[in-house]
Amino acid sequence: MSRIEEKVAALGLTLPPTHAYPSPNRTPAVLSNGILFLSGHGSGRHAMPENVKQHGKVGADATEDEAYQTARAVALQMIASIKQAVGDLDRVTRVIRLYGMVNSAPGFDRQFAVIDGASDLFYEVWGPERGLHARAAVGIAELPRRALLEIMGEFEIRD
Amino acid sequence: MSRIEEKVAALGLTLPPTHAYPSPNRTPAVLSNGILFLSGHGSGRHAMPENVKQHGKVGADATEDEAYQTARAVALQMIASIKQAVGDLDRVTRVIRLYGMVNSAPGFDRQFAVIDGASDLFYEVWGPERGLHARAAVGIAELPRRALLEIMGEFEIRD
Amino acid sequence: MSRIEEKVAALGLTLPPTHAYPSPNRTPAVLSNGILFLSGHGSGRHAMPENVKQHGKVGADATEDEAYQTARAVALQMIASIKQAVGDLDRVTRVIRLYGMVNSAPGFDRQFAVIDGASDLFYEVWGPERGLHARAAVGIAELPRRALLEIMGEFEIRD
Repeated sequence: MSRIEEKVAALGLTLPPTHAYPSPNRTPAVLSNGILFLSGHGSGRHAMPENVKQHGKVGADATEDEAYQTARAVALQMIASIKQAVGDLDRVTRVIRLYGMVNSAPGFDRQFAVIDGASDLFYEVWGPERGLHARAAVGIAELPRRALLEIMGEFEIRD
Repeated sequence: MSRIEEKVAALGLTLPPTHAYPSPNRTPAVLSNGILFLSGHGSGRHAMPENVKQHGKVGADATEDEAYQTARAVALQMIASIKQAVGDLDRVTRVIRLYGMVNSAPGFDRQFAVIDGASDLFYEVWGPERGLHARAAVGIAELPRRALLEIMGEFEIRD
Repeated sequence: MSRIEEKVAALGLTLPPTHAYPSPNRTPAVLSNGILFLSGHGSGRHAMPENVKQHGKVGADATEDEAYQTARAVALQMIASIKQAVGDLDRVTRVIRLYGMVNSAPGFDRQFAVIDGASDLFYEVWGPERGLHARAAVGIAELPRRALLEIMGEFEIRD
């Protein structure tokens, strides 16, 4: 097992199955020129832990703390997609950037606290050098299947 | 004529003229390190086919099926921008990722079905290997000139 | 002093201090494979000039002209982040792309005119070849700390 997968296991986490898209036109991640571009990973998908809030708007249907846990669960799905795409999580040499979109009730303005659920997990797993990343976390109007949040991102991959 | 342009023609499609920006500060696409970064291509622009819905919110001013056709027309404009930027569409070795923003009426949550209009066209044109891409499709609050949707993306270009 | 810093000074501008994130998990910019990926830079942060509108929605709490000035101030913060990340602004060989998110009142549809505040500054500073960039400018539902706007982007960096 790779070092990064050992870290994931040491945190008590198990990689979920990757998302099966309904159409053949797209895939969870594409590697080009040393950068892995991830699709938006939304919380409306299957295979989320039972206690995770998946749908609605933060500030109305879910609290900030609940949404933090949702972001952490989505980040774990992103890690599963990375493994599927590049084979070995140890090939990730840098978490480059995350773009977190939070389905926000009017007036909710603490998207950074929600997406920290993902940022904290990446930071824990890849450590202070490889895990330190750029980010934007914003409030989006609507998401597919009323997902509570969706995250995409870029990761540096070594050959 | 290049192989990809032949495919576009075989689908009965003609590349539209590219967008003329009102300001000299920006351009439809920038190539850097083997990746072509496309500007957001919105449906509010000129040179759209007459029967395409250009403005308003999906779920109120346009149906999902109408918006699918709009996304297909916007994808064709993106292809025109790619050709202008790199000269030959055969230089595209991978559709990397699309970011589709759908001007969504409250509660509309099927952005994936709308942006499939673009994804399907790229997949048809570049085929199952080069055309398979990453994607996010989300609901945006407002778009310039009340455009129904806007799409940006990244494409891998060989020298 | 570098040529680009001289240009900034000649415009009567001074680089502000960079943003201190509350969490160690993220940073203003990450360089990978020759591309500098910038975090979202929002107008809600500290160290903005006193006369700049920082909060609310364009079209309700700020005019288009006021928001243009806000975008210009945010672009200056981005330049400060670039300098911190790569040491010398002369290393920027191309402004690749900006993604501008404007906190928009319902019906406000001139996001392009707002984000021109940033595009114009980058164009003035880096000139017509290096400063010509791709861009999307859209209306976002909510932003952290009710920021009036937020901008992220990618910049090409030479070794």
